Amino acid sequence: MNLRIGKLQNWLQEQQIDFAFINHSRNIYYLTGYDSEPHERLLGLVVPALHDPILICPKLDQAAAQQSGWSGEMVTYDDTEDPWVILQDSLSEKSFTGPAMKVAIEMDSISYSRALRVQSLGQEISFTDLEAQINFMRQVKDEQELQILQEAAKLADLGVEIGVKALQVGITETEVVAKIEYELKKQGIQGMSFDTMVLFGEKSALPHGTPGDRKLKKGDLVLFDLGVVWRGYCSDITRTIAFGSITSEQERIYQTVLEAELTAISRVKAGVPLGEIDRAARDVIRQAGYGDYFPHRIGHGLGISVHEFPSITETNQDLLVEGFVFTIEPGIYLPNVGGVRIEDDIVVGADGPVILTGFPKELLIVEE
Amino acid sequence: MNLRIGKLQNWLQEQQIDFAFINHSRNIYYLTGYDSEPHERLLGLVVPALHDPILICPKLDQAAAQQSGWSGEMVTYDDTEDPWVILQDSLSEKSFTGPAMKVAIEMDSISYSRALRVQSLGQEISFTDLEAQINFMRQVKDEQELQILQEAAKLADLGVEIGVKALQVGITETEVVAKIEYELKKQGIQGMSFDTMVLFGEKSALPHGTPGDRKLKKGDLVLFDLGVVWRGYCSDITRTIAFGSITSEQERIYQTVLEAELTAISRVKAGVPLGEIDRAARDVIRQAGYGDYFPHRIGHGLGISVHEFPSITETNQDLLVEGFVFTIEPGIYLPNVGGVRIEDDIVVGADGPVILTGFPKELLIVEE
Repeated sequence: MNLRIGKLQNWLQEQQIDFAFINHSRNIYYLTGYDSEPHERLLGLVVPALHDPILICPKLDQAAAQQSGWSGEMVTYDDTEDPWVILQDSLSEKSFTGPAMKVAIEMDSISYSRALRVQSLGQEISFTDLEAQINFMRQVKDEQELQILQEAAKLADLGVEIGVKALQVGITETEVVAKIEYELKKQGIQGMSFDTMVLFGEKSALPHGTPGDRKLKKGDLVLFDLGVVWRGYCSDITRTIAFGSITSEQERIYQTVLEAELTAISRVKAGVPLGEIDRAARDVIRQAGYGDYFPHRIGHGLGISVHEFPSITETNQDLLVEGFVFTIEPGIYLPNVGGVRIEDDIVVGADGPVILTGFPKELLIVEE
Repeated sequence: MNLRIGKLQNWLQEQQIDFAFINHSRNIYYLTGYDSEPHERLLGLVVPALHDPILICPKLDQAAAQQSGWSGEMVTYDDTEDPWVILQDSLSEKSFTGPAMKVAIEMDSISYSRALRVQSLGQEISFTDLEAQINFMRQVKDEQELQILQEAAKLADLGVEIGVKALQVGITETEVVAKIEYELKKQGIQGMSFDTMVLFGEKSALPHGTPGDRKLKKGDLVLFDLGVVWRGYCSDITRTIAFGSITSEQERIYQTVLEAELTAISRVKAGVPLGEIDRAARDVIRQAGYGDYFPHRIGHGLGISVHEFPSITETNQDLLVEGFVFTIEPGIYLPNVGGVRIEDDIVVGADGPVILTGFPKELLIVEE
């Protein structure tokens, strides 16, 4: 963990920023190992460029923070105290607040009222944005993170397996969702990483469809899109299967999406521009004549958040770096015919792609 | 809905505020009937003191907003456009932006970067806080809201019933949680209103315990605390039952909590100070000698959020108003003996309390 704080301090020094105030619980988890959602209570991490970091947290959570491995300084408060006053006293003692300070905050996630309280910690504080820098740091995963992401991906595989086994004529989309989540919760997951999607037949053609009481029929395509939160990290998998025999056009869509996905994965290598991954899949889909029916980017970064950096769009010219983790998820959505999406979680490894999700991708035809 | 916006406009006029910018999705739902979580995309409601309100929302959500009943003006944008520029153009056309404007924002929930964008809508905008006013408005529920809250409470009752039926020697807390959520999801709920709590034996004595793999044994107290989100509104119920026969001390705790709860409910009436509800229960518990083991407030407001105004604490001197909805939930937590909490959702009716939750409260002893 201290490596991460050290990297942040290097950046603060380069940018001549006096300190960072970190407020987002996911970033605090990333930097400290302490995974907590304190709701309206203040949980914050002060990282000075040149001094040791200080965690400010509710007194009742002090033991939990220490048990999670935080051995640095802590400032605590109870519900009758104003945490900002206590924090200011602590900073003043260390005399590293002064006039005309530059402070980095997460501008997109800290609330306006909290930003004002941060501003009141010094006499003349000007803000700079921390969001991009911390998102940038979080892109490259270390060994421990990759281990957890692998475990999370295996649980996503299990979710699809449970869903496939639950299929029978007349079952509804929401019933399948409930079965998947029930079995995964028994495995001890922290939660689903987003609302589980199970869509039947014509509903599979809606990229943002919502499961409902549509009943399963023979000849339906069935699209599963799901993921879990495991030890603070997210997985995300999509598989589409056939319930009974499907039409030749549906099968053609399936094979096109699969080829697009495999082609995109094969291009994953450190140094390759991100946009090339998107274009590789998009070219396959365009050449098959379905270019108008693939309306979204090919994928997104994955880690402590289910959507994080990098964003894999056609126009992104940034380069892949070893340790990036992201989804590759091409899809074709044909109104009245059905939709197919196939999605895996991919690591940029030393020698190319490492695929974390493992549920088979050959067209699976489930007979009743 | 327009009644609610009208009330807000009255307040803006009284306070000489030019307009309110509402950013919190729960408040937008309250004011417009449009229930959406747009994540990083901008969804906002501009309510001028003296002009018609304007909803700014992503183009792809326009139809959904209109279907949900929003018939007012809309400004929409697609992903290639800057919604703030489009909004500013629209406001300028109406020429109700000018120099030195007073604007109300939700200071505790709007992000710092969005507050800066609101500030850029005019030449010299000063902020005032909207949070307290909108929380104040949301306290008093109308007939439609009470109807939905009643339905949400019945589903919470069902959750406890499912949990009680699932109890058998050796089952774990998380297995019971999974069964409850599975059955409730089949009923079409939007989600649980918070993480479902099922605690066995000594774990029932932890007011913020987390369900785990503790196995159920004869003689355990079992505490259920759960609620659902139904049509955008939350319920919240707690029941404690005995699995097999319990000790006389456990039974004494149970009867004390029940008496405390019934006493507090009996005091509910418009015009009564909120603190009196808390004290009524606290006195019963103190007189029984357990005052040190009831460490939290008696309850909290309930509505679109699972915790909202009013906060029912011993020192709150505000008066109860007809249409307030809140929980009453006294508890006694005795380390090594066990904990009991009983919680209902209560409306301040015209003639006293109306109790929304209905699962029986006499001590239930479940035999294997």
